[in-house]
Amino acid sequence: MAADSAHHIVIVGAGFGGLEVARYLAGTNVRITVIDGRNHHLFQPLLYQVATASLATSEIAWPIRSLLRRYSNVTTLLAKVVGVNSQDQMVLLEDSTTIAFDTLVLATGARHAYFGHDEWEPFAPGLKTIEDATAIRRRILSAFERAERATDAGERSKLLTFVIIGGGPTGVELAGTIAELARETLRNDFRNFNTQDSRVVLVEAGSRLLPGFREALSDYARRTLVQLGVEVRLGQPVSQCTADGVVIDGQQLPAATILWAAGVAASPAAEWLHVPADRAGRILVAPDLTVPGHPNIFAIGDTAHVEMPDGKLVPGIAPAAKQEGRYVAETIKARLEGEKVRPPFRYSDAGSLATIGKRAAVVDFGWIKFTGRLAWWLWGFAHIYFLIGLRHRLAVALSWLWIYFTGQRSARLITQGSADSREKANQSHIPPTRP
Amino acid sequence: MAADSAHHIVIVGAGFGGLEVARYLAGTNVRITVIDGRNHHLFQPLLYQVATASLATSEIAWPIRSLLRRYSNVTTLLAKVVGVNSQDQMVLLEDSTTIAFDTLVLATGARHAYFGHDEWEPFAPGLKTIEDATAIRRRILSAFERAERATDAGERSKLLTFVIIGGGPTGVELAGTIAELARETLRNDFRNFNTQDSRVVLVEAGSRLLPGFREALSDYARRTLVQLGVEVRLGQPVSQCTADGVVIDGQQLPAATILWAAGVAASPAAEWLHVPADRAGRILVAPDLTVPGHPNIFAIGDTAHVEMPDGKLVPGIAPAAKQEGRYVAETIKARLEGEKVRPPFRYSDAGSLATIGKRAAVVDFGWIKFTGRLAWWLWGFAHIYFLIGLRHRLAVALSWLWIYFTGQRSARLITQGSADSREKANQSHIPPTRP
Repeated sequence: MAADSAHHIVIVGAGFGGLEVARYLAGTNVRITVIDGRNHHLFQPLLYQVATASLATSEIAWPIRSLLRRYSNVTTLLAKVVGVNSQDQMVLLEDSTTIAFDTLVLATGARHAYFGHDEWEPFAPGLKTIEDATAIRRRILSAFERAERATDAGERSKLLTFVIIGGGPTGVELAGTIAELARETLRNDFRNFNTQDSRVVLVEAGSRLLPGFREALSDYARRTLVQLGVEVRLGQPVSQCTADGVVIDGQQLPAATILWAAGVAASPAAEWLHVPADRAGRILVAPDLTVPGHPNIFAIGDTAHVEMPDGKLVPGIAPAAKQEGRYVAETIKARLEGEKVRPPFRYSDAGSLATIGKRAAVVDFGWIKFTGRLAWWLWGFAHIYFLIGLRHRLAVALSWLWIYFTGQRSARLITQGSADSREKANQSHIPPTRP
Repeated sequence: MAADSAHHIVIVGAGFGGLEVARYLAGTNVRITVIDGRNHHLFQPLLYQVATASLATSEIAWPIRSLLRRYSNVTTLLAKVVGVNSQDQMVLLEDSTTIAFDTLVLATGARHAYFGHDEWEPFAPGLKTIEDATAIRRRILSAFERAERATDAGERSKLLTFVIIGGGPTGVELAGTIAELARETLRNDFRNFNTQDSRVVLVEAGSRLLPGFREALSDYARRTLVQLGVEVRLGQPVSQCTADGVVIDGQQLPAATILWAAGVAASPAAEWLHVPADRAGRILVAPDLTVPGHPNIFAIGDTAHVEMPDGKLVPGIAPAAKQEGRYVAETIKARLEGEKVRPPFRYSDAGSLATIGKRAAVVDFGWIKFTGRLAWWLWGFAHIYFLIGLRHRLAVALSWLWIYFTGQRSARLITQGSADSREKANQSHIPPTRP
């Protein structure tokens, strides 16, 4: 273990970026404290599969302290950070205690954002945490359950309408999986309606799906979703979300389940430091990822606004956060070894992947792009490869192979319903049934 | 599908007993409606493994309608039953709707009971549902997390003390697994204390553990638990449970985590029908498992008080509920075929099993009893055999083999904390740390 006098690095947030910093520096002569408000690291790229009953929560989450246990110079704390005192170099925790740092890395991630419509949140939940995913799973499965008991045709049709707002990878993945859930997994499970009558509507304000990919891939994604039975509505902004449904392009669409995949905002790290941020709250970092005016404070991942040489933003995806974490760790190490100047951070685009249901995907490596079943298998192997540890890889592979060959999903649990006000609101809309 | 005019059997509760009735009668010319307040059938014998982070929730739960989907004459409803109108032969649901029946089977199960000390529940939660299990898991894991941040030695020792009240199979299994969690799984995960200093205390008011087993096995269980580091306190009743800990035999024991495995009470089915029940609320059924005075209403499983010829009670375990369900289904079928007289229900004891940590168990088949590693493997195979479907068997086998060979548990998730008042109460007891 490093001496108590060793340089103390505090990392706030154990997502992809924060963990990368901790692991790279774990072997060196520093003290590291990792602080996270949750006890687990989450593999967010597969979170939508928990929300759609394909994977169990524990298959995509790892206890942070277990991931870091073999590094004796790393301490993990489960605590909520509420501020930074940059003058005295201290992190402020929720219980009013403080933790002093020599170097601070802010890797606090993002939450979904409603761009001035926070009142939509109870009706259109987003997907960022394990709790979000189980709440969305509960809503989707409960809508089918309530449809089985509904007697009014209009009410049933509303219960069987699923609206996903936002045509990025998460929206596309949710829409494709919910369509498969309705048409395949649940096909024989209900007596009072046909699950094929479910409507899955994917709404995107922009002119195409997957705006981060090339246009040909956007078009392929749209066609594949339509084949799965998804209604894709492009160029149609949503102007209202209520307990009754959504208003799309001026038209009311009754829907009991609305999911938000349209935008994220950074955690309040910029406010902690009173430094400039972009519209989504990301800190406008220097080329070496330090916070301007605070050379010993770094921001990475969804907390940082990082531009590429062509002016485009480094995307908010796991590989980018990891690269930034690695760069910051190298910078800290170089500084401790006396180096003063470092080349600026350069993002290396390893390509983009998105999946559409269980048989198609799009892959864009820049130099090559492809679609279809091969892309799906590549997507699957890539994600299993990036899971941590053999245990999780085996479990996820088993779950996927099972769904692939049987169409059945094993995580169809409705749990923890009491705290969800929206469902209660909806439930009162159901007329008495089966008299 | 059976005609709408067919005999309508309503089954309330899709536990082991209720499911058995539905499956046996599914092929016959009747209409069946299964009503449960939850969407999943739960394999309760392994629930303690979810509470101790060994298994994922979805590994021991199945969507009820998925289990019954291939039977076209069975309808599954997710609904909460709040009463029975036996005069008009109707079941009353929470939303004031009713469902008419020709034959009713009450298989509503049990909740944990505090025998006149309901005020203990917030401090000593019991284990009956998936939510109970994730709440207990959260408490156990949070206690270790808070211990890592505690500075006061007394506070830390309280956080690292786990008291289990009740020396039946659930209490023995919880105590053994928590001891292994502390001593093996978490051994290298903390920096500010040694997890070997955790205290696991199993308290039983009676004179021996596992009172349903033979005395030699009780003694073996006690010795094995002591070897695992559990303090076993026999003949010591608990007289108080508070946020500070428990009072055992007049002595205060500070403990942040108290778990209740001491008793259950039946659901209020007896009250619905205004019929006599035993002290634990179980209906005193006739020898053919009908409710006295209601020849077309049956009660089975934990809802029924059934005596064996020797005057002993049929135990509240899964095989007993299944046998009762099978007997009731045969009786209903015989009646529809015109038979009037049926032999009374006879319980066939297939033996008892309980496990003590991950390397020992006790098995009592009546004609043979044995203990140790062989018993553990038998216990494991038996439970995997009784899981439904290859998917769950593979998943649970993988989880167990992983724990067996690595000591690591994959379901160490702290989730859904906000609703738990006890934890908040405890958190305010922690003094500020790391100044």
